[in-house]
Amino acid sequence: MGKYCFGIDVGGTTVKCGLFTTEGEAVEKWEIPTRTEENGKNILPDVAASINEKVKEKHLDPSQIEGVGIGVPGPVSEEGEVPVAVNLHWGRVHIVKEMEAMTGLKVKAGNDANVAALGELWKGGGVGYHNMILVTLGTGVGGGIIVNDKIIAGSHGAAGEIGHAHVDDSIKDPCNCGNCGCLEQVASATGIVRLAKEELAAWKRDTLLKNRPLSAKAVFDSVKEGDELSIRIAERFGRYLGKALAVYACVTDPEVFVIGGGVSKAGPILLTFIEKYYQEYAFPTCRQAAFALATLGNDAGIYGAAKMVL
Amino acid sequence: MGKYCFGIDVGGTTVKCGLFTTEGEAVEKWEIPTRTEENGKNILPDVAASINEKVKEKHLDPSQIEGVGIGVPGPVSEEGEVPVAVNLHWGRVHIVKEMEAMTGLKVKAGNDANVAALGELWKGGGVGYHNMILVTLGTGVGGGIIVNDKIIAGSHGAAGEIGHAHVDDSIKDPCNCGNCGCLEQVASATGIVRLAKEELAAWKRDTLLKNRPLSAKAVFDSVKEGDELSIRIAERFGRYLGKALAVYACVTDPEVFVIGGGVSKAGPILLTFIEKYYQEYAFPTCRQAAFALATLGNDAGIYGAAKMVL
Repeated sequence: MGKYCFGIDVGGTTVKCGLFTTEGEAVEKWEIPTRTEENGKNILPDVAASINEKVKEKHLDPSQIEGVGIGVPGPVSEEGEVPVAVNLHWGRVHIVKEMEAMTGLKVKAGNDANVAALGELWKGGGVGYHNMILVTLGTGVGGGIIVNDKIIAGSHGAAGEIGHAHVDDSIKDPCNCGNCGCLEQVASATGIVRLAKEELAAWKRDTLLKNRPLSAKAVFDSVKEGDELSIRIAERFGRYLGKALAVYACVTDPEVFVIGGGVSKAGPILLTFIEKYYQEYAFPTCRQAAFALATLGNDAGIYGAAKMVL
Repeated sequence: MGKYCFGIDVGGTTVKCGLFTTEGEAVEKWEIPTRTEENGKNILPDVAASINEKVKEKHLDPSQIEGVGIGVPGPVSEEGEVPVAVNLHWGRVHIVKEMEAMTGLKVKAGNDANVAALGELWKGGGVGYHNMILVTLGTGVGGGIIVNDKIIAGSHGAAGEIGHAHVDDSIKDPCNCGNCGCLEQVASATGIVRLAKEELAAWKRDTLLKNRPLSAKAVFDSVKEGDELSIRIAERFGRYLGKALAVYACVTDPEVFVIGGGVSKAGPILLTFIEKYYQEYAFPTCRQAAFALATLGNDAGIYGAAKMVL
């Protein structure tokens, strides 16, 4: 086995790159811009050039390099082909074939959210576990399902799309996916603001939220200061998410739920609201599941990408 | 590879046994009683004796036999150990170790519901697919999750316990699992009777159900005769189940849902009620999933057990 590997996380504006030891130590991290013009035809050549340059700079021999893992924002087949990736302006692209030709290295590709889950399992909040569900609470709600250390991609690349589970019949305005009542509409950063607005409209007493620009961060900051309304909002959020995670647990029965994304910056207090309701709704055997915060932040993608080739 | 394999399905009263070719043709099927007395200490020796006898009777050489697969009603570890199996009166039993010693053959063990799913994938309603969710609608609601042709057992043996997903806040009486509002309480044979009773109590007009002993079969028989109330009950059932399956699809994104168990004897009409609501709630990419009826009935377990060793 080689001593090094590359982890690449292709985003809509920048490509994050990492050179790692096969033990998972980051030797170097850098970024290059994502050139999406002309159907993103330069993206992979730019990445390949950057890798080849780094190999030269570090005086590495190809035999020392285990391979290159790449995460992209879109569905990726087992063979490493993307049918379409909107954010990269891509139509059908065979990442593995193209990148192997341009670098001479072994290449694996995966969906970025799934790859990030693998990163958290390897070197983040999921260390020591083998069965995990990663929940990313950002603008939307994303996820990644790991079973026996492997990503579950799904037969249409939609495994782990847990933000689009239906959780509320009373929501009548559509989610980004077109359905109504998705988890994402009540448990993402945007969803928490929705809950806050609803609660604020009916609230007669004083609250710290009246003096703060409304955001998920403002809600959890106020929770920490004991604000009654904010705690009420956090409880609603926790019930939605905890109940949904209890349903997912009936499917893959994970050892751990790792919670990441911008909302998770609220820290351990966030987990208490989720876990409380998870315990209320989970099948008894599944109640043993642990809860942890993601720790790699925006680096989860490059770690997970690197892990893919090991 | 050997030419034959055994598939064993250990139930609470009888053990179903099958000798198969490795292509999946049943050479012979038979049953022996399950002797649960004295903590079920005779169960495995009885099974081993029956296998050894069959090997002799058929003049098989051990080299011709690929192995023995066994499904049991309880959680089974990857190594083939059962911590406890209530219906067999078992405490901790290491199935693989004990059976290998008594037969001299390679042995694999798994949970019976999961094993049945593998059987339906191999030779039943899921033939040709690699990613499947089996839904068993019997007295309860069971399930089996298959990803890339493999059973997902879960980290506590509870993967596929989809009957215990929380689906209704308004149900206040407890499920067998102790929680309230489980899918099993509204989508099993018993659950359908619950829905029927609720609807009947409020129904003022005529209905075929008033003249029939109430059962899931009576409901779907009456649906086929155009009975308005029965259709109403089937729609409620379909919404509960279709909505729940749409949520599970966000987790593993299967190619096909295979519906089995006693309720599935209603035939293809059952699927129309489930699929209609699945389509309403599923994440767009997951709407491509197919629906099929299970075809192996009570033989799914022996087929799946045999497949485990191949």
